[in-house]
Amino acid sequence: MTRPNKRRGSGPRHRAEARWEGRNIRLQIEYDGSNYCGWQSQKIRRSKTIQETIEKVLRRVLQEKIRLVASGRTDAGVHARAQVANFKTCSKISPEKLQNALNGLLPEDISVSKIEEVPVSFHSCLGAKSKTYRYTILNRRFPSALLAGRVYFYPYPLDLGLMRSQAKSLLGRHDFSAFCASNSGAKSKIRTIRKISVKRKKDGLLEIEIEADGFLYNMVRNIVGTLIQIGRGKQGARNLKRVLDSKNRGLAGPCVPAGGLSLIKVQY
Amino acid sequence: MTRPNKRRGSGPRHRAEARWEGRNIRLQIEYDGSNYCGWQSQKIRRSKTIQETIEKVLRRVLQEKIRLVASGRTDAGVHARAQVANFKTCSKISPEKLQNALNGLLPEDISVSKIEEVPVSFHSCLGAKSKTYRYTILNRRFPSALLAGRVYFYPYPLDLGLMRSQAKSLLGRHDFSAFCASNSGAKSKIRTIRKISVKRKKDGLLEIEIEADGFLYNMVRNIVGTLIQIGRGKQGARNLKRVLDSKNRGLAGPCVPAGGLSLIKVQY
Repeated sequence: MTRPNKRRGSGPRHRAEARWEGRNIRLQIEYDGSNYCGWQSQKIRRSKTIQETIEKVLRRVLQEKIRLVASGRTDAGVHARAQVANFKTCSKISPEKLQNALNGLLPEDISVSKIEEVPVSFHSCLGAKSKTYRYTILNRRFPSALLAGRVYFYPYPLDLGLMRSQAKSLLGRHDFSAFCASNSGAKSKIRTIRKISVKRKKDGLLEIEIEADGFLYNMVRNIVGTLIQIGRGKQGARNLKRVLDSKNRGLAGPCVPAGGLSLIKVQY
Repeated sequence: MTRPNKRRGSGPRHRAEARWEGRNIRLQIEYDGSNYCGWQSQKIRRSKTIQETIEKVLRRVLQEKIRLVASGRTDAGVHARAQVANFKTCSKISPEKLQNALNGLLPEDISVSKIEEVPVSFHSCLGAKSKTYRYTILNRRFPSALLAGRVYFYPYPLDLGLMRSQAKSLLGRHDFSAFCASNSGAKSKIRTIRKISVKRKKDGLLEIEIEADGFLYNMVRNIVGTLIQIGRGKQGARNLKRVLDSKNRGLAGPCVPAGGLSLIKVQY
C-alpha cells in the first residue's frame, strides 16, 4: 500500500510555501485564561484554547489559514499580560486596522495590545531569550470578590524574609526536576532562572516573579507552592536548595492554583 | 370569610419580635456584580441577587431567618468595593468566626471584608449620609482582556478639562430628573451631589467619582454617558447645566454599561 507523502512531498502546497514572500506579524496579547484550556491547540480537543480562538478570528479577517506561533504555551487557567505570538500572511492589511479588527471580533477575555510587522526571521518561540511569570497571592485574613480567579487566597502569615533568602538558591542553571510535573514531556529538565523576587504590595498582595530562559510544566506553580510552605514554616529543616538538589518532586510543595499565575513579559 | 391577620396580629411571631434583645451586625461587602441581577431580592425573581445569596448563607450559618438591609440597592451588573449592610441576630457567634464562615461558604464573587457588632440603632440604609460611586472608563485605542467587565472601553479621545469644568455644575442640591431612568419609582428626583471628580490614571484608565446623599435609578451611568458626550465634543453648544435644568432625560447622554460602575464607599 502506498500513500502520497503529505508532509514533505513536492505537491502544490509545498511549492506554494517555498514561493512564499509575505509578511511576518508580531502580536502582543493579553488574556484571562479562566475559560480556556491553555494556549496551545490540542489534537484531542476537549475545550477551546487561546491559540485556536485567535487563529479562527485571524482566518476570518485575513481570509487565509493562519498558523499562530507563541513564545510558549501557557497552561489551562493561566493568564497573560503580554504573551507574544507571530504569524505569516500574504495580506496587506495595516497593523493598526488588523488590531482594531481583532479586538472587535475576539471575545472580551482576549485582547491584542500591540501589533507590528517584523522581519521574516522573527520567531516568537525560538527567538525568546527569557520569559517572566508573576504569581500573585492574596495574603490576608479575608478573600476579595473582585480579585477572584486572579490571585491565590492564602490567609495564613508568611515569613517573607525567609522566602526571599531561600528563593535565591534557585538562581542560575539547575536541573529543576523537583519542580516539574510528573506528566511533563520535556527531555531536559535543565533551565536557567535569571531573576526571582518576592514582593509585598498593598492590600495584602504578594507578588512572586520569576524570569528564566524557559519553564517546565507547572514549574512556577510548584516553586511558589514550596516557597509558601517555607514561609509558613512547614518545610521544617528542609530548605529550597535541598529540594532542588534532590530532583525529587515528592519533596517540593504542592502545585498552587493556575488563576494566580500570569505571563507578564517575553524578552527577545 | 375571615383570615387571621398575619402582619400586625398579636400572634407568636409578633410577640417574639417585640421581645427581641439580640445583636446588630454590620458587614462591609465586596462583590463582582456581573453574575447577579443587582443587590435587592425581587418579588418576581428571574435571576439571583446579591442580597438573597448572602441571606441564604447567613441562614445556614446562624440557623435563623435573616433579613439583610443594605445602604442601598445596586443595579444588575454593578460591582461594590464596600457595600454596607446590617442584620439582627440572636446568635452569639463572634464577628471573626462569622466572617470566616461567610467567606468560606459564599461564592467567589462575593466577599465580606469587615464585620463588627454595632449599636441596635444602626441602620445601613436610613443612617447613610452619603454614598460614593466610581465609574471607570478604559480610554485608549485597544481594550484589556484582564479588565473586561470592570471598565467601559471607550477608544476615542476625550477632553478631560472640559468634562471636569462641566461636571462642576452638578454640585449641590438639584432635581436630577434629566439623569434618571424613566422607569424609576422615586417620588422626589432631588438629590445633593457633594463631590464629583474626573481623574486620569495610568494605562488609559479614567475614573469618575460621584459622592451624593442618594442616587436615582441609573443616575451615575446617565451622568457619565453625558460627560463622555461632552468630552467627545458631541453635546455641541449644550452644556451640562442646561441638560440638568431641562429635567429632560432626552437631552442627556446614553446610559453607559453597568460593568464600569462600582459602589466604593458609604458614609455614616
